[in-house]
Formats: sequence, structure tokens, C-alpha cells
Amino acid sequence: MAKSPEVEHPNKAFGWAARDSSGQLSPLNFSRRATGEKDVTFKVLYCGICHSDLHMLKNEWGTSTYPLVPGHEIVGVVTEVGSKVQKFKVGDKVGVGCMVGSCHSCDSCANHLENYCPKMILTYAAKYYDGTTTYGGYSNIMVSDEHFVVHIPDNLPLDATAPLLCAGITVYSPLKFYGLDKPGMQVGVVGLGGLGHVAVKFAKAMGAKVTVISTSPNKKKEALEHLGADSFLVSKDQDQMQAAQGTLDGIIDTVSAQHPLQPLIGLLKTQGKLVLVGAPEKPLELPVFPLIMGRKMLGGSGIGGMKETQEMIDFAAKHNITADIEVIPIDYVNTAMERLLKADVRYRFVIDIENTLKSNN
Amino acid sequence: MAKSPEVEHPNKAFGWAARDSSGQLSPLNFSRRATGEKDVTFKVLYCGICHSDLHMLKNEWGTSTYPLVPGHEIVGVVTEVGSKVQKFKVGDKVGVGCMVGSCHSCDSCANHLENYCPKMILTYAAKYYDGTTTYGGYSNIMVSDEHFVVHIPDNLPLDATAPLLCAGITVYSPLKFYGLDKPGMQVGVVGLGGLGHVAVKFAKAMGAKVTVISTSPNKKKEALEHLGADSFLVSKDQDQMQAAQGTLDGIIDTVSAQHPLQPLIGLLKTQGKLVLVGAPEKPLELPVFPLIMGRKMLGGSGIGGMKETQEMIDFAAKHNITADIEVIPIDYVNTAMERLLKADVRYRFVIDIENTLKSNN
Repeated sequence: MAKSPEVEHPNKAFGWAARDSSGQLSPLNFSRRATGEKDVTFKVLYCGICHSDLHMLKNEWGTSTYPLVPGHEIVGVVTEVGSKVQKFKVGDKVGVGCMVGSCHSCDSCANHLENYCPKMILTYAAKYYDGTTTYGGYSNIMVSDEHFVVHIPDNLPLDATAPLLCAGITVYSPLKFYGLDKPGMQVGVVGLGGLGHVAVKFAKAMGAKVTVISTSPNKKKEALEHLGADSFLVSKDQDQMQAAQGTLDGIIDTVSAQHPLQPLIGLLKTQGKLVLVGAPEKPLELPVFPLIMGRKMLGGSGIGGMKETQEMIDFAAKHNITADIEVIPIDYVNTAMERLLKADVRYRFVIDIENTLKSNN
Repeated sequence: MAKSPEVEHPNKAFGWAARDSSGQLSPLNFSRRATGEKDVTFKVLYCGICHSDLHMLKNEWGTSTYPLVPGHEIVGVVTEVGSKVQKFKVGDKVGVGCMVGSCHSCDSCANHLENYCPKMILTYAAKYYDGTTTYGGYSNIMVSDEHFVVHIPDNLPLDATAPLLCAGITVYSPLKFYGLDKPGMQVGVVGLGGLGHVAVKFAKAMGAKVTVISTSPNKKKEALEHLGADSFLVSKDQDQMQAAQGTLDGIIDTVSAQHPLQPLIGLLKTQGKLVLVGAPEKPLELPVFPLIMGRKMLGGSGIGGMKETQEMIDFAAKHNITADIEVIPIDYVNTAMERLLKADVRYRFVIDIENTLKSNN
């Protein structure tokens, strides 16, 4: 019989967990493995709340296991390193994102794309190499193979950097891969939430002209004045959308709700690219004619490899890019989830783990 | 009042036309413009029947005008050239495909992509620069600006080359553009019809390993033994499709009927590309998750620019690639349309214009 989470590993840990698909979070005592020879152990200081945490808490993707400790935007300070760890030392500021393992032998791994490895291990609610369940960053300590740990440069504030580990790399990677990172590119960003607001910042720093496309005119001032977007389109305003036809080199579409693709494809220039990083549960309607008539492309992208994640963090440090956050105490987390469901946050909740997570013991 | 088709231009012409959306074809006397200074006039010898002719005859895309003389896979021999024509002389074997005009000043035109020019003029049922209607190749003579005419090398049989001018370039261009033309690439071809069978030949000549994906197991022997495909998948056989998951670098999907994309996306490797060249009338269902999980792409492609069309013909000549055809007399054309609707042709009808089209006069 499998051991309970509290005793399966030697090191005591605590966090907040959902016990079932109600998704309600409450304190949990569990355990972490001892620091292996290639492992980095760190004290968690902050952890961002990603929308996928909400999906996972409620088992909306059907892959959740309970108890489930969420959190994959994790930053902290190294407390112990294994004997073969080369890149980190005690006291380093570090981060862990969405994954903590991969096969290291497939084509994807060989090409620094661990994120597309078929055996990639998610940071929480997944089976680790040793058969135990992985637990995320809504907890006091983390242990991770150093391969899946990134350095956080000193000039980045840890709280506002945490969301870059998922939201940041999720938009940075497709901007690079789909060639939208060239100065002067006309880049659209659909949806001004956790992903979208960071996409605007990265695209601007890469030299692009950025158009925010949103259902809500309320976000116009914010997008233009605060985030530095160059223009703003209300997607429900047909005149505005019509006038902008054929103007964009590419679009990062962060929306995970059902939404029509045709108007977005219409905004693309010939050979433009619509990149989907939000994953609606049901299929979207794809009109094929407009793709053919303009050799347009539609692509997906999911987080990024570890090499690129470090590159993204270093780029953020160079350009002073962080997420706009609302820092909350851990005992506010259930309320935060309710607000997140209503998109009532600008733009990312980050849990102050260090100062608010208390042991039960 | 506009002049009738028979007298609007100085040169008498005749062909077969639909008079209304019944799509029934019958003889028509009309006229062609005099050879302009940049024009090439040629005697039509053969014209292929493309599935889009059928759509246009019946006004299924809502853009048809009548009388409608279809045909955009046209080959013949030059009879007259304008004073400023540089590339052609009387007696040359030539072809005209889907377009006869473009703006020559937009970005697409500047990049040899006249096919994506917003002012591109289709070979038939479109308005030419002078305001008159364009008529296609089910007719005895053609006049075209030399820019939209290609040379046909001597070693290519004219009848079986005609379909390359639409079907050929439609599959050749995306194989090149989407990078599926490298030796050793694993390329899928969905649908073994007019486009698909040529796609197999081009992909093989480029050095790819080709998998034909068809709803019908009947085509297996033909695909493997006659067309030279390397493997064959029956798309309705879930075991076969499952076993082939993640094996293809790209797929050319020629099917214009409604069909599920998810199984095709599943066949792609990480970063694989599904290219749609058939245009279903209604939107297809697009599952987003599998695109994100493998950074997969889906793109459209429509015919090709004139430079690339000549390149395609020259490639075909070098590799002895032609379409598999059934040559028919013009008075069989209505029957051919009925058979085409049932996909009852291997793989392209070509009308013997020279020997079977007779003047009414």
C-alpha cells in the first residue's frame, strides 16, 4: 500500500491542498523527498496563481489527483543543494515553473524542448520518477532537479517575477518561435489577463507595435497608458475590426473561453500567424477559406523549454519586465479563486507564502 | 449598356458555357480581346476540369456570373504575341492557370505572390482591368498578359500537364513553403483525388516518405504500387491511426468535404504542420489542446505565384511528373461533371479542346 503524503518522504512540508473536486483549499501536512544529488531544495517565498490551478483544483481536465497542492509559478531561496548540482548554491534566488521532469533522451529533450517531451512531469498532480505524486508551490518548501530550476537575477522583485514562470514563458516562447520578435512587427494580443498583459510587455520590449484586442472597451486606457500598447480594438465593434483587417503580422490569443477565430484571422496580413496559447475545452470553429486565401497560419504553443525559460527571465531582468500583481495571504486563496473565475484581478494573484503560510503543527 | 459577350471584343471565340446555376454547359459564341502589347494569344489544345469549376458552374461560392466559361488548367500553342512580349514567341507551348491579372504593386506582388494579391484576377468569371468578364479555357483561344503565362517544356505531354496548372501548383507550393520538401521528411497526403495524387508524386520527387491517408481502403494498392507512396492509412481505422500517432512532419490535406481534423493533428510529430488546400464550405472543428501540447501548426495555401508556377512546371519536367488523366471530348463535359461530383475519375478529366470543340458557325 502506498504511504500517505505525510510520511512517504523524510522531510516534513506543509501547504494548502484541495481534497476533492469541490476545489476548496485547506491546510495540508505532507512531505518532500530528501535533497538528491542533482536536486535543489528551496524555501518558497511567493507562488503565483495560474488559471490552470483553478481547472486542476476542480478536476476540469480529468487528470487531477487528491490531495492536490497547486502552484507552478514558484520562487524562493535555495537552502540545500545535492552533491552533483552545478548551477546553484545555497542562498540563490530561484524559480520553478510548470514542469519538474522529462525523459532527457527524446528529440524534444535533445532540442531543449522538455515542455514537449511525451514524458514531461508536471510540477503538481503528476507522477514523479519514483512513483510519488508531485506537489506544487502553495507550500513552504520545494525540491527539484536542478535542470528544472532557473536563476532569478537580483534586480527582479520576487513576487512580481513568480508569474513569469508560467504566464511569462507561455507568451515569450511563441513570440520568438513564430518570428514575432522582430522590431516593427505588428503584433496583436487577444485577452488582457494574466497572460495577455505580460505578452504586451514582452512584445513591446522586442520592438513590436502592439494592438490589444479585447471584448471590453474598459481596458483601453489601461492597455494604452499603463501597459504601453500602441492601439486597442474592441473585438465586438465590427467597424473597428473591419478597419483593422489585414494589418497584423501575428496574434497571441490568450483566451481560453469559446470565441470566434474568423475575426482574428481577418486581422492578419497575408502569411500572418494566429497563435493559440489558451486552451478552450471544446473545439473552436475554424473557417478554412480565409486561411487558404492568405496563406495564413494557426499554431499552438505550450510554455517553453528550460533553456528558453532562463532566457525569458534574463530578458525580463534586462527590460525590467514583471507581472502586475495583487499579493495575497494564503488564507485568502479560496476567495482569490472565486475572483479569478470572474477575471476580477489585475492581473495575477501572487501568494505571499513566506509571511502567511503557517504550519499546522 | 454593356455589349454582349459575342461582340464586346474584336476576335471571335467559342467555347462551352453555363447560362445559369443549373451549371449545365452548352456551346457559346463569345469574343476575345485583340492581342495587347504585353499579351500572348494561344490556341487552346487541352483544358483540365478542376473541382472548383463545378462549384463555380453552380454558383456555390456566390461569385459566379453568367454566361460562365470555366477552365483554369489551360495549355496550348502560341499564335500571336504583342510587341512588348519578351518571354514568348509564336509556336511556344504554354499554359495558363487560375489567374490572369494582379495589381503588380502590393507586397504580395512584389514578393512573387500574385496569388495573394487582393486585386488578383481569376481566369474566369472575374472582371478584367478593362471591365469585361474573363472567360476560361473550355474555349478555342486564350489571350493573357504574358506575366500569367508559363512555358511548358517539350518533354511534358500537354494533356497530362494541364492539371498541373491548378492541382499541381496547389500542392507544390505548400510542400515548399511549409518546409516539407526536404529529403527524408515524413509527409502525409489526405485524399487521393486530383490534388492528392499529384501531391504524392511531387512529395516523392522531393525525397519525402509519403503516407496516403484515405477513407477508402480501395485506394491502397493504387497508392502504393502505382503512385509510389510508402504507406497507406485508412482514416476510419482507429488502430491504424493510433499506431501512426506522432509520425508525420507534415500533412497536405486536399479534402474539401467536412472532415475531422483531430485525427490528422494526432498523426503529426511535435511542431508538425497540417496544411489545408481544400476549402470546406462550413467551418471545421478545431481542437486546440493538441496544437498547444505539440506546438503544432495548421496553415492554408492557395495555388502559387507565377514564378513558382514556372518552377513547378520545370520541376515536373525534370522528374517526369504529370497528372493521371482521362481525356474526354467537350460534348462529354456535362457527364464528366456528374462523375466528378461522385469522385468517379482517376484522377483528372482533361478536355481535348483541339480535336472536339467545334464552332457553331
